[in-house]
Amino acid sequence: MKKKLIAEFLGTYFLIFAGTGAVVINELTGSLTHVGIALTFGLVVMALIYTFGHISGAHFNPAVTIGFFVNGDIQKRDAVYYVIIQTLAGITASLTMIGLFGNIANLGATLPRDTWQQSFILEFILTFFLMFIIFGSAIHGKAVKSFAGIAIGATVGLEAMFAGPICGASMNPARSIGPALVSGSLQHLWIYIAATILGAVCAAVLYKIIHE
Amino acid sequence: MKKKLIAEFLGTYFLIFAGTGAVVINELTGSLTHVGIALTFGLVVMALIYTFGHISGAHFNPAVTIGFFVNGDIQKRDAVYYVIIQTLAGITASLTMIGLFGNIANLGATLPRDTWQQSFILEFILTFFLMFIIFGSAIHGKAVKSFAGIAIGATVGLEAMFAGPICGASMNPARSIGPALVSGSLQHLWIYIAATILGAVCAAVLYKIIHE
Amino acid sequence: MKKKLIAEFLGTYFLIFAGTGAVVINELTGSLTHVGIALTFGLVVMALIYTFGHISGAHFNPAVTIGFFVNGDIQKRDAVYYVIIQTLAGITASLTMIGLFGNIANLGATLPRDTWQQSFILEFILTFFLMFIIFGSAIHGKAVKSFAGIAIGATVGLEAMFAGPICGASMNPARSIGPALVSGSLQHLWIYIAATILGAVCAAVLYKIIHE
Amino acid sequence: MKKKLIAEFLGTYFLIFAGTGAVVINELTGSLTHVGIALTFGLVVMALIYTFGHISGAHFNPAVTIGFFVNGDIQKRDAVYYVIIQTLAGITASLTMIGLFGNIANLGATLPRDTWQQSFILEFILTFFLMFIIFGSAIHGKAVKSFAGIAIGATVGLEAMFAGPICGASMNPARSIGPALVSGSLQHLWIYIAATILGAVCAAVLYKIIHE
Repeated sequence: MKKKLIAEFLGTYFLIFAGTGAVVINELTGSLTHVGIALTFGLVVMALIYTFGHISGAHFNPAVTIGFFVNGDIQKRDAVYYVIIQTLAGITASLTMIGLFGNIANLGATLPRDTWQQSFILEFILTFFLMFIIFGSAIHGKAVKSFAGIAIGATVGLEAMFAGPICGASMNPARSIGPALVSGSLQHLWIYIAATILGAVCAAVLYKIIHE
Repeated sequence: MKKKLIAEFLGTYFLIFAGTGAVVINELTGSLTHVGIALTFGLVVMALIYTFGHISGAHFNPAVTIGFFVNGDIQKRDAVYYVIIQTLAGITASLTMIGLFGNIANLGATLPRDTWQQSFILEFILTFFLMFIIFGSAIHGKAVKSFAGIAIGATVGLEAMFAGPICGASMNPARSIGPALVSGSLQHLWIYIAATILGAVCAAVLYKIIHE
Repeated sequence: MKKKLIAEFLGTYFLIFAGTGAVVINELTGSLTHVGIALTFGLVVMALIYTFGHISGAHFNPAVTIGFFVNGDIQKRDAVYYVIIQTLAGITASLTMIGLFGNIANLGATLPRDTWQQSFILEFILTFFLMFIIFGSAIHGKAVKSFAGIAIGATVGLEAMFAGPICGASMNPARSIGPALVSGSLQHLWIYIAATILGAVCAAVLYKIIHE
Repeated sequence: MKKKLIAEFLGTYFLIFAGTGAVVINELTGSLTHVGIALTFGLVVMALIYTFGHISGAHFNPAVTIGFFVNGDIQKRDAVYYVIIQTLAGITASLTMIGLFGNIANLGATLPRDTWQQSFILEFILTFFLMFIIFGSAIHGKAVKSFAGIAIGATVGLEAMFAGPICGASMNPARSIGPALVSGSLQHLWIYIAATILGAVCAAVLYKIIHE
């Protein structure tokens, strides 16, 4: 378990450091463009799955851990530890970010561009499909599991690409909590906790129904 | 069969939601650029093949289903169900899109930039090679089939990249019917049904001739 | 042999159709940018290797075929057929292109930006490493050969990305002959034939020396 | 050993030729943008791992070689040879670059955008995670090692993408020494030697502690 928690900490830290770092550094320099930010999110998830997947399962995301719990892939006690360590890793990443660059671009916090309802629905759909793709590519008995890292990294990348400009494309409470807490922009945080967990749970329930 | 149809529905829905969502959100924000839209289409197809390929075959495209039928890879009755469910998924995706964003950019409907003849020929060539690459990488006896998702996703991505600015790079009747029907821009829809099916059928016939 | 030649024809045709199509359509619309053009070249090579690699070896390039011949991987007579069919495929792709779009951007012909010496050396280096990467990833006894398509597609994509703006990053006589012949811009064609073949031959000779 | 050193020379040469070439050619033409430069770095590392990984281990980076030495994966004497040949390859790549293009953009030398402390910390974090991802994806007993090239190439690409605009995202002393020496911009070189080696060593020590 200790190794698993170290893996979840390192993985979640680097995912959020690189991803929100891309947002912050693009704000400072204008060099990455939105395309570069979305690619950063997708590539870091892919690389980390091939690094830590065989150790901790490479969740790096409380919504994903809760989805796995609903489907019976992880024990309740372990899931609680995972969620805590992921959240701590996100906060640590944002603390590193503010130390290096100051409070730029709300440290990459996710914010709705327009109404909160629109972003809530989008985050729900994004996390629903992320979770379903995880089940289909990494858990399903007939899946070519070695390719799951590519499929899941691609999903995070493409969801960040198309939906990022509207809702921030969080899909991950830890990714939203870290920057929101450290930069002090907490007003819309609940969306990114509620909608993502709801999406992952719905995907897990649907996946269970289909495969029973 | 029920599982297969659910897989085709979810896959086609998300393919069209993400792909046309990229077009719509780029119209609203200008953030994705054409490169980001093309990458979204390619990545979503790749991710979905690794998620649903082992369940339904991951067609998500009536032209591809018809191509498989011509080559004898799917029964007529199943093919009809697939085409219906794919078309319904495309319409549902466009209904979600109009509900979230209103009627922006014709909901990502495919339209010829110049003459319809030019776009017809391009769509024919694009779908011909998409179908042939599917046969060669996912069906052929000596293919390294686990890499088919990468090859096919890359094909959709690169065809969207180079040909999208001229013809929209549909290659998929369901991807064109959804936005056209829901946004009411039906004038050129026939091109994207006729040319794509013709391309897939020609690829299937050529593939059969070569391998007999 | 008939199947191999069909595979080489279809593969080389689509490689050159998509790649030079990206150049032409970017000239017409400005949508792809140089990044999109380079990605198109890389992705199409990767997709085609997984489609035709197990049939013809997926050369699609006279310089590569000559490199394989020097290393003893293909018979002289077969190599001659390959080179002829690849060249014909390139010309056919450029004829399709001029029929669809007219003589735009010299149909994507490769031209030196500055001195011919600079482009000659660059094309030599590019093709040398392309050929060496092909040997190392697809031929070497200990290579994980199923990943060769990814390695080789990445090489073509990255070489087009960094060197394209200076020399056109042809690495392939058939890719340069087609557009040059059909658009009538023959003045620098010899560079893209001589430098690429020289690069591939040097890579083959070095590879042979090391592995004997 | 001779084959290994040739592999390290060719690989490091091409990594630095392509990567710094992207910086130089973007300075000359403006075509690549930062996104294209970062993709070039990631793709070249990936392609080279599938080409030379089974020969030399595909280090191409003195910091990585030192990290492997700390973890006991390479003998001291071999590590010294590797570091020397990698450094020579970097210098040779920069000599080729200055011969082809003149002293443009300091030949792609890495320089801090702001304070040296900020770039030092960033380079430390980048190389720490690069090294840890190498251990996790390519060395760990349960890793799907054939995918290590994708994971490591993605890591170099995404780190160049998000951190490049601030610190240059070297992660590799040889990649910084070549351009700095040949272009004569040595003032900040020590950062890119000290921080990267420190990052790799810390990753190796942590990896050892966890797995004992």
